[in-house]
Amino acid sequence: EILSAIEAALGAGPLAGRRIVVTSGPTHEPIDPVRYIANRSSGAQGTALARALATLGAEVVFVTGPAAVPPPQGVEIVRVETAREMLAAVEAALPADAAVCAAAVADWHVANAADQKMKKDGSGRAPVLDFAENPDILARIARRAEDRPRLVVGFAAETHDVVAHAEAKRARKGCDWIVANDVSPATGIMGGAENEVTLITGSGAEAWPRLSKDEVAQRLARRIAEALA
Amino acid sequence: EILSAIEAALGAGPLAGRRIVVTSGPTHEPIDPVRYIANRSSGAQGTALARALATLGAEVVFVTGPAAVPPPQGVEIVRVETAREMLAAVEAALPADAAVCAAAVADWHVANAADQKMKKDGSGRAPVLDFAENPDILARIARRAEDRPRLVVGFAAETHDVVAHAEAKRARKGCDWIVANDVSPATGIMGGAENEVTLITGSGAEAWPRLSKDEVAQRLARRIAEALA
Repeated sequence: EILSAIEAALGAGPLAGRRIVVTSGPTHEPIDPVRYIANRSSGAQGTALARALATLGAEVVFVTGPAAVPPPQGVEIVRVETAREMLAAVEAALPADAAVCAAAVADWHVANAADQKMKKDGSGRAPVLDFAENPDILARIARRAEDRPRLVVGFAAETHDVVAHAEAKRARKGCDWIVANDVSPATGIMGGAENEVTLITGSGAEAWPRLSKDEVAQRLARRIAEALA
Repeated sequence: EILSAIEAALGAGPLAGRRIVVTSGPTHEPIDPVRYIANRSSGAQGTALARALATLGAEVVFVTGPAAVPPPQGVEIVRVETAREMLAAVEAALPADAAVCAAAVADWHVANAADQKMKKDGSGRAPVLDFAENPDILARIARRAEDRPRLVVGFAAETHDVVAHAEAKRARKGCDWIVANDVSPATGIMGGAENEVTLITGSGAEAWPRLSKDEVAQRLARRIAEALA
């Protein structure tokens, strides 16, 4: 780790000269000026991954939603709020050698978000929110005709049938790898310090042991370095 | 301030022997195990107020949603997530001499919240969320037949027609005071360090100058001490 940091500082790590875009954190989708739809991603895994990639010498563009953990040092930080802003930021960061989509992106945004705070009108009737699908950032990047990164990695946070859902997701999105994990509340992974992932590649599924999020990040960063070598 | 802290430590402040319930922070209303509806309250004003009341000698029960700022020291902390949990915690904390409802409570919860993560089914159709009105914590406390605190204070976060909405809110809820402020994004108050409030009492509306949230808290705590004297 110390050796890696020295190598990175000297521009000599295995990812020296590689540009990698990492998305991280949740997105927030506004309902009105004070309310929004969020998700429980802390940004911890994406932040650890960006740090590990930078430590191996990569030039990292870190596109982050409003995360609970502070962003890593030594990377270019682009702060966004919504899924649509995140897509635009990732596209603006291309071309890149790899894109790792670790953010927990909202599937939908509120199409009829209000300019003023929505108020109860005394009728007991709730507001009707019209949802519109957000752009699929992972698929959009993986299926680009121009400037498609050589390696596109997605994450799949599932609460059941983790590997089956993740393999289907890899095929559907057109990405190269999926890092799948089980975020059922019982696992304590969402917001916690550890992660237990399965790496899905074109060669099959590898179940990794339960590791700290830093160890998962370092292991994944080394795999990315091998793939780009 | 130092004198107040010494008095409080000696049980000698103007609020010594008074029990005050303070709610603070946002509530989170689950959509499914990973998604929720939130609001932009940082909990800063409620936290500052609880600290100021404790400094004046009060026994403070601090009922807080998932806030961005850490809770104050020297108070009893009750952590909740949803509006329904917050109401239950406040009711459990009674009887009390005063209740100050500074939390930004969601008006609605998702009646059809899912046990498993909602997934896009490929149809492009968005989920339909059925909203149900949350209990009105301020009105429920202010209109109690038994154990109504002598002083019930609400907050009104508005984006337009602040005083008119706040005066109507005071009458509608049956509370004694409303602390009203303008949380339009342009003011920078939501999530910021300052606040500019209007105190609405039975005697009318007092516009306070723009002050730090700590100063607003100290001023309001002194007014509460006078009201309970």
